[in-house]
This record gives sequence, structure tokens and C-alpha cells, in this order.
Amino acid sequence: MYQSFEVTARPDQGPPRLARLREELQAEGLSGFLVPRADAHQGEYVAAHDERLAWLTGFTGSAGFCAALMDVAGVFIDGRYRTQVKAQVAGVYTPVPWPDVTLTAWLKEKLPQGGRVGFDPWLHAAGQIRSAEAELAGSGIALVRCDNLVDRIWEDQPPPPMEPVKAHPLEFAGESAADKAARLAEELRRAGQKAAVITLPDSIMWLLNIRGADIPRNPVAHGFAILHDDGRVDLFMAAAKLSGLGDHLGTAVTQHEPEAFLDAVAALVGPVRVDLSTVPQIVADRLGDRLAEGGDPCALPKARKNAAEIAGAAEAHLRDGAAMVELLAWLDGQEPGSLTETRVVSRLEECRRRDNALQDISFETIAGTGPNGAIMHYRVTEETDSRLENGHLLVLDSGGQYLDGTTDITRTIAIGTVGDEEKTCFTRVLKGMIAMSMLRWPVGLAGRDIECVARLPLWLAGQDFNHGVGHGVGAYLSVHEGPQRLARVSHVPLEPGMILSNEPGYYREGAFGIRIENLVVVEEAPTLPGGDAERAMLHWRTLTFAPIDRRLIVAEMLTGEERRWLNDYHAEVASKIRPRVGEDARRWLDAATAPI
Amino acid sequence: MYQSFEVTARPDQGPPRLARLREELQAEGLSGFLVPRADAHQGEYVAAHDERLAWLTGFTGSAGFCAALMDVAGVFIDGRYRTQVKAQVAGVYTPVPWPDVTLTAWLKEKLPQGGRVGFDPWLHAAGQIRSAEAELAGSGIALVRCDNLVDRIWEDQPPPPMEPVKAHPLEFAGESAADKAARLAEELRRAGQKAAVITLPDSIMWLLNIRGADIPRNPVAHGFAILHDDGRVDLFMAAAKLSGLGDHLGTAVTQHEPEAFLDAVAALVGPVRVDLSTVPQIVADRLGDRLAEGGDPCALPKARKNAAEIAGAAEAHLRDGAAMVELLAWLDGQEPGSLTETRVVSRLEECRRRDNALQDISFETIAGTGPNGAIMHYRVTEETDSRLENGHLLVLDSGGQYLDGTTDITRTIAIGTVGDEEKTCFTRVLKGMIAMSMLRWPVGLAGRDIECVARLPLWLAGQDFNHGVGHGVGAYLSVHEGPQRLARVSHVPLEPGMILSNEPGYYREGAFGIRIENLVVVEEAPTLPGGDAERAMLHWRTLTFAPIDRRLIVAEMLTGEERRWLNDYHAEVASKIRPRVGEDARRWLDAATAPI
Repeated sequence: MYQSFEVTARPDQGPPRLARLREELQAEGLSGFLVPRADAHQGEYVAAHDERLAWLTGFTGSAGFCAALMDVAGVFIDGRYRTQVKAQVAGVYTPVPWPDVTLTAWLKEKLPQGGRVGFDPWLHAAGQIRSAEAELAGSGIALVRCDNLVDRIWEDQPPPPMEPVKAHPLEFAGESAADKAARLAEELRRAGQKAAVITLPDSIMWLLNIRGADIPRNPVAHGFAILHDDGRVDLFMAAAKLSGLGDHLGTAVTQHEPEAFLDAVAALVGPVRVDLSTVPQIVADRLGDRLAEGGDPCALPKARKNAAEIAGAAEAHLRDGAAMVELLAWLDGQEPGSLTETRVVSRLEECRRRDNALQDISFETIAGTGPNGAIMHYRVTEETDSRLENGHLLVLDSGGQYLDGTTDITRTIAIGTVGDEEKTCFTRVLKGMIAMSMLRWPVGLAGRDIECVARLPLWLAGQDFNHGVGHGVGAYLSVHEGPQRLARVSHVPLEPGMILSNEPGYYREGAFGIRIENLVVVEEAPTLPGGDAERAMLHWRTLTFAPIDRRLIVAEMLTGEERRWLNDYHAEVASKIRPRVGEDARRWLDAATAPI
Repeated sequence: MYQSFEVTARPDQGPPRLARLREELQAEGLSGFLVPRADAHQGEYVAAHDERLAWLTGFTGSAGFCAALMDVAGVFIDGRYRTQVKAQVAGVYTPVPWPDVTLTAWLKEKLPQGGRVGFDPWLHAAGQIRSAEAELAGSGIALVRCDNLVDRIWEDQPPPPMEPVKAHPLEFAGESAADKAARLAEELRRAGQKAAVITLPDSIMWLLNIRGADIPRNPVAHGFAILHDDGRVDLFMAAAKLSGLGDHLGTAVTQHEPEAFLDAVAALVGPVRVDLSTVPQIVADRLGDRLAEGGDPCALPKARKNAAEIAGAAEAHLRDGAAMVELLAWLDGQEPGSLTETRVVSRLEECRRRDNALQDISFETIAGTGPNGAIMHYRVTEETDSRLENGHLLVLDSGGQYLDGTTDITRTIAIGTVGDEEKTCFTRVLKGMIAMSMLRWPVGLAGRDIECVARLPLWLAGQDFNHGVGHGVGAYLSVHEGPQRLARVSHVPLEPGMILSNEPGYYREGAFGIRIENLVVVEEAPTLPGGDAERAMLHWRTLTFAPIDRRLIVAEMLTGEERRWLNDYHAEVASKIRPRVGEDARRWLDAATAPI
């Protein structure tokens, strides 16, 4: 079983650990130290070795940081975690509502002139430090590079991950690593850049057609790479991890131990392209004025999936859809009140494991019933595990990692007899999700330009939800992949081949949650009769196939077109998934996909 | 009559004037000179004195610039003017598709290292020069401040405008100039800024509750102002213009002649706030490192109309709506083929002048029939004047300046019997316009976040239009007023009191055009039963009341809600406008607003 339900927060350990950290501050002559939930690769998940924030404070959320000063220790958390943090940290820690209160504003309030705040320059992106220093200008407070003081006091810190790396077959990657390096090198030459430093693990995996296992849920290995403008790649990754690769990397890739990375950076001829939003400050320090700002050169090419990756994603989604249908059919046969959330999570993972294609789940399954469904990033533990009661909505958000693709699906399921208010809200969310699915839009627009389409039915009823409509998804890589997003923060134009989620929701605190999520891929839209001849437009092709709970739909609220979309979708679900499931599930599927 | 139909372009004068300009270049040792369509105040309209671009090149569009080099002279024009420029400039000028080709990329292509391009530092915003210099870095090409070389050779250049300034009564302004200065001064003090330099005429008019007549269509006077952090204002404007004001300006405002402006800037204690996107380079030069970046402090307060301004706008729109209804009723009584565009423009201005409240039209009326309707910024002249033929759509986009408000309305009118394709497209545009009118959205969103709502019906049919959905509108000020816009470029959150246009369209080149435009004002939306209790939302109140041509609507394409909106709107038009028009117009109005 990939997922566990243990309670990982240890609030009781917070006070003694903070006391020891403060001894180190005193010894170093520092006023404070920053503890981010981050490693040198700025990923969403971190290895056990890098769980410094949780170890120190007890807070286990996926984003946040601690600013530990001598007399106050702020734990900065965003809107998702304001409740959770209170339950997880001891009284010596002060939750700070971030980003409403910024780190620098807080430091200016808490520290006198002359304050010196230490940070580990591996764990903070250069752009982040640059902004913070600009905001602190004139305050007399300085950010100071130093050793990692948490590592110094964390006696049983797990070692850095050292899992074996595997080749990612050309059948799934669709383009050889050599071809990828060649076309990125050409881009560097055009920009007059001599090299690019790549520190994001999924970029390195994509570039070299390899996959790793250093991080839970993400098939990546930790390492660094330097891409030269002639297509050569220096890879800084322990030889021990790479021993199973044979000659997969080829002669254009040279392996080095990670310890050689900084010296190699220091020896580069400039300009050297880095992504300021993710490159560690220590790398920027070594580059000095040879640093050239620019995005990670792999980011957009990786986001534009090729034909093999899209075909793989489609196949992975059919396999995953069959697992979902087996789960949903089984769930429907259980009496309300007879199951808890962890049982659903376990059973779903069993369904996904059935054919041995599952490499991992793509994130911790969210299974929130009743009021738990309103907690957007709910992770069920033994303590919170709740019973699926009659009248509940169950929000079930999950995904799988397969060699041919990464999936992410949410369905909201009626438990027993559900109230009218829940159904009305569900239907609004569905209308938004269908409107986005049916959309076509002119080439050049970003997520920000179209994401409201999925919100309109809620807005008109005075409702909304506090998360983006969708995120990018990798090809057997991260389930949250940039730079494309269907969100208000995203100004990256959508392009053919990009895979995103379409997942509007609605949450009523203490009562219920709703979310409906399909993955979709951007395609060129065919010209319509009567449409503008010269106007290139894009649209979505749906990848996810699993029934949407018909019992929650108020049919009269749907327009004719919405109803047609739903019935067509369900017919496609039935025809694609029916051959892949057992007899019982097939019977259930026929009923669940009947036209409305 | 405010509007004229004369042909103002003089392509034949272009070559000799360019030759003389090149003599000046040679004398100054310059490789080129930049001629923007701009004055020192960066407004959309310029006085005759500042029509340098049209005088030199013949091009009369409202945006563009010429880069006159020794052997090539580029006229940079955006997408709107690619056809017009070819008809207006002689062969010695080379149209350059801007911004696809930027000025700096073009200069780098045309000039050798050591090239020196002159510009008048009064006519270019500091931000514009800063960007251009950054782009030219390393190219060996320099931008050089110099005298205005066009003024030197333009022998009969009209003098700068010198029209009298009038007080804008508190009844319409809603807040005294002293109160406005006090609250802006407080903002300066909070930001630690000692003063703000204000160079936008409409900002100065708003701040001091005055109106001028220096610029056609905009009730503004040219001048500069310095707002001090104690609320004092130095106004740099010819005393001759201000002689009719009596003691309206009060003791906190000190008049100076414009010639004293630069010395006063040079004497300021910093930091001094300026709007880099509009402040002349010469002002930035005088400020040096005392310059503090920040928006024009009047921009947002001016955009958030107060209760008196909104009430005035509503009243102005009823008056203007009555004029529109008189025009539409008259137009409907004419035989297809019996009228030309100029006759419609003249008649409409007569209708607006009828009650002597009209101060000016708010922009040159666009009256484009048949294929002319597809030219988005069509200005009818004696040469282009076309007959309204049976089957045409007439796009009529116009507005008035009244003491209590500024209007802007577009209606598309069926001439005789119109084809089905035109009706289908019209109905899609109408559906988008209604969807925007009915929208409610959460507080904090900008135009970019919601503007697609007005495009969706077109997108789904493979169609779109190449302009924003709406622009801000002033209170007896500019008909195009920032910073708020309903457009993809606008990231300024919409706030209660902001007035915008809602004007989707559709254009088929060589065939027909469609645009439907109402002005709307942002208001706080009441909470709905069942809506999120804590979620503040905004919606629109419509200000414009005039019938939308029912003959162009395919009723079956409307949803029940859209039809309800239209019928409710028409009922409101009838009840509000009926008492304000004559007998014939009343009869016409009753039919034109009947439910569908």
C-alpha cells in the first residue's frame, strides 16, 4: 500500500527542538533562521531527509515555512492550512497568515535594526531571496547565508534518498534524449547563452528520458544538470543511482557526483541561463554576473506533450478509469454507514494495483465524506477517519502513476439519500465543468483568460470556490506540472499538447464539499462552418473516462447542450470502459451511464 | 456641428516635408528623429498644434509614430490602421506593422553602430524611453534628446491651444477640490512621498474640479500640476485660460505660467511620485534620483465615481438615450438607399443638440454601413461616405459630453431586409453582451478575469473580434479613461463606482460589422439566498437606455434568461425614455421595445 494513514505531526517535540535551534542561533550570532518546506529542487513533495519543517514544528502541510527568532517562531501558512496548523504545532509556534502577512513585513515588525536572519542558500530560490532583500532594503535587517542549523541538531535525520534510476522507453517518451538536448541547445545558441543550469528533477527526467524514485508520488531522482549550447549535458547525480541504466545516457551525457556541481557551475563561461524562481541562491552566487535570467528551458517543451505521450496518457486513463469504475461499483453496493474513508482509499488503491501496471499513486488520495469534503486538501488519518453516512457527499480525488502516463480524477459520490441543496450545488459545479469541456478559444490565451468559464454558474448563484480550475499534469511525472495552469495566476499561453485538469468545486465549511475533475489535453480546434476562416482556435479533448454521479444532477438545471454533452460523455465512458471491467461493474456501469 | 467630414490626409505633402526634416537631421548630426502622435500629456486626442505625425506623413490615425531616418522613414501602425496607412502616406514612407516589429528591433536593423536617433523629451514618456534604451543596450545605437525638429520646419504650425477653463460645479463633481487634494496628500504622506507631478490633463481637471476646451472631444485644458504632501497644489497653466474662474481654485492652489514648470520640478525635495508610463522624459531627467515610481495618484480615485457622478451619468444617459431614440425612430422612417452615412451622423448630432445640454460629442461618431461597418475605427469622410442600402447593417457608435456625464453607445441597425447570417452573428454578439450585463463576480477581479464572458457565444461558433470588450469612461471627461478596462491587458481590479463600456462586436471584412454597446457601472451585488455569506461580489448596473434592434435577433437562439433580460431591459428603456421623446418617436419606441 502506497498511502498510509498515520498521524505524522509530533507537536510535543516542537518546544525542545526549537530550544536547541535557538542555542545554535546564539552560537552563530544570528537573530533567526528560516526553515522552508523545501529541498534544493523546489518540488511539491520532499524526501524524508528534507522534512525539516515538519520535524521542527510538527506542521505537515505541503507549503509553508518557519521563521524561528529568539523570542518568537512564526509558522507561515496559506489559506488551506489555517485550521490544520493549529492542531499540529505547539504553543511556542505562532501561526502567521501568509501571504497576507509577508515574511519581510513580519521580520520588520519583530526584529530591531541590525537583525541578522540566517538561511540555507541551497533551500531558497534566488528570486525569492532577491525579492526579500529588496523588501528589507533600508530596514537594517539582513538575510545571512549559513549552514543548515536544523540539520545540525537533527540527530536521526534520514539520509538523502538514493533510489535507482530507470530508463524511460522511447515508446512512451516519443523523442530521444539526444533530440531533446539538440533542440534545447539550439534555443540556447539563438539566445546567445552558453549553458543552462537545470535544478528541477522533473526537467532532468524529461530531458534525459529517465525516471527515479527519490520522492514519494513523483517518479524523479534528485540531481542537477548543466546543458551546454552544443547539446552536451553534465549530470550531477550519484553513480550508485545510475548503475542500472547501462548505456542509456549515451556519450553526450557525462555523469559527475553531486559534490562536483558547484565547482562546475563556477567554471562555466557565461551567459548561463537559470530559472530565478527555482534556482538555489547558492548557484546564483557562484554565477555572479554570468547569470542570465530565463525560464527553465525544459519547462515548455515538457509541457507540450508529443503524440506518444498523449497516446500514453489516453491509455493510462482508460486503465485508471476501469479501476475507478470497479471502485465506484463496489462502493455503491455498500450500505451507508458501513464504511470509513480509509477503507475507500485502500480499496481504490487495490483496484488500481489489480493489473500490476501501477507504479505509484500520483498523490495522497483525498477521500473526504460529509464535512471533511469541505477541506480542500484533506488527508485522512487514523484520527480523522470518518464514516460515510447516509446523506453525505464523498469527495474522492486520486490518481495513478503509470509508465505511459499520470492520472488525476475527482468524483463526488452520493452516499444514500442526499439533500436538494447538495444536488443544486453539484449541478452548478457540473455546469461549469461542462462549459469548460465544451469551450473553444482563440490561440494565444492563457489560463487566466478562460478560467472563469468554469465558475459562471456558481457566480450567478452568489457562490464560488477558493482554488484554481486546473493545473498542468506531467507524462509519468509530477501530477502538478507547470508552467500552464487554468488559474488566475497563469499568464502562460495554452498550447496544443498541454495536459491540464478541469476541476471546479464548491465547499460549504462544516457541511459538504463537491469537486468534479477530468484531465483534458489542448488540441487545435477544427474550423467550423461559418467560423472565422483565418482565426486559429484551440479546444480540449477529454482524457478521463468515469461516470459522473447522475443521482446528484438536477436535470432541469441543464441546458439542452449540457445534457447532450453529459449523455455523449457517458456513452463514451461506457463504450471505452465496459470491456475493461468485471461482470458486476459492467452492470453498474450500464446504469450509471444511462442517458438523462 | 462638431464633427466634420473633410479629408485631412495630405499624402502629397509628405515627400517635401520629409526632405526638409532630413536637412535638419544632417545639420544636427543625427541619424534619425522620432515623431510620435503625442503631446506632453499623452492623451488620445491632440490639439492641432501637436498633429506633427499627420502633418509630416499624412497618416491621421489616433495611434502610431514615425521614425524618420536618412534613407528610410518607417510609419509604425497597429492592426487597426494597416489599410488606412497605405491610402494616406506617400511612397517615401514605409508602413511598419507595430508592435509585431518594435521600434528598437527596426532601428537595429536599419542603423549601423554609432547611430544617433533624436527625440523630443517632452513628447515621450519616461517609461517608454527607459524600455527602448534597455532594448538598445549593446547595439551602439543611442537615443538623443533634442529640439523638436518638426516644429522647426512647420512654418504655419497652429499655436498651442488657449481656451478658457470653467469651474466644474460641486453638484456634479460630488467632492470639493480641497477634499480631493487632502485625501491624496494623505496617501503621499503614508508612502513617504513629498510630492507628485501630475501631467495628465484629465487628472488635473478632476483634482481641481475644472474643465477646459483645449482638446476636441475632451473637456480638458493643457497644463501641469504638482501636488504637495500637505495638500497644496502648484498649477502650471496660462493665467489667460484661468481668468474666468474667479476664486474657484482657492488659496491652496497657486497658479504659475507653464514656462515655470521645469524649474519648479527641479527645485522639489524628493521622493517625488510620477507615473512612468505617462510622465515626459524631460520631467524624469529633472527629477533624477528623487523620482519615485507610482501611478498617477488621481487615476484610481477618479475612476471610482462617487454618488453625484454616478447620478449625473445616469441623468446624462437618459438625455442621450432620448436623442438616440429620436434618431432611430427617424432612421426607421427613411427608405433604404435614401441616406448616406454623413446624413445619419449630422442628424444624430442634431438630436443630441436639441436641448442645448450637449457640450461636445465625446468622440467622432462612427457610422459604418455595410462593408464600412467592418472597419472598427471607421471615420466617415466626404470620400468614403456610403449609402445605406437595403440589406445593410449600420454600425452607429457615438456619444455626448454633458456637464453631468459622458456617454458612449453603439447600436447596430437593420437597413431594410437583412440576411440570416447577419442575424445569427448579431444574436451571438447580443448573447455575449447580455451575459456580461447579467454577470456577478467576486471582489478583486480585473477586466482580464471576466472579459471572455462576452465572447463565449462567438467562440463556440468559431468566431471572435479583435478589440477589448470595454473601456473605462470619465465623468464629463475622457470617453476612454483608465486604469480600469474590460480587456485582456487589464489587471486593475474592478471596484464599485467604475464606469465601463460593455461592447462586444463581430466584423466580417468586406461584408458587415456588428457592435452593441451599453455603459455599465460597477456596484456591490446584494447577497443571494443560498449564496456564500462571506463572499463579497460585484455586479453591473446599466446606464445606457436605448432599444436593441429586435429585427436582428434570432429569438430561438436566446435562453429563457437572456430573453427575460432583454424584455426587462426594453421595458425599462420604454418607461425611462418615453416621457422624453416626441409623439412619433414614442410610437416607434413602443414597437421597438415590445417583448420578444
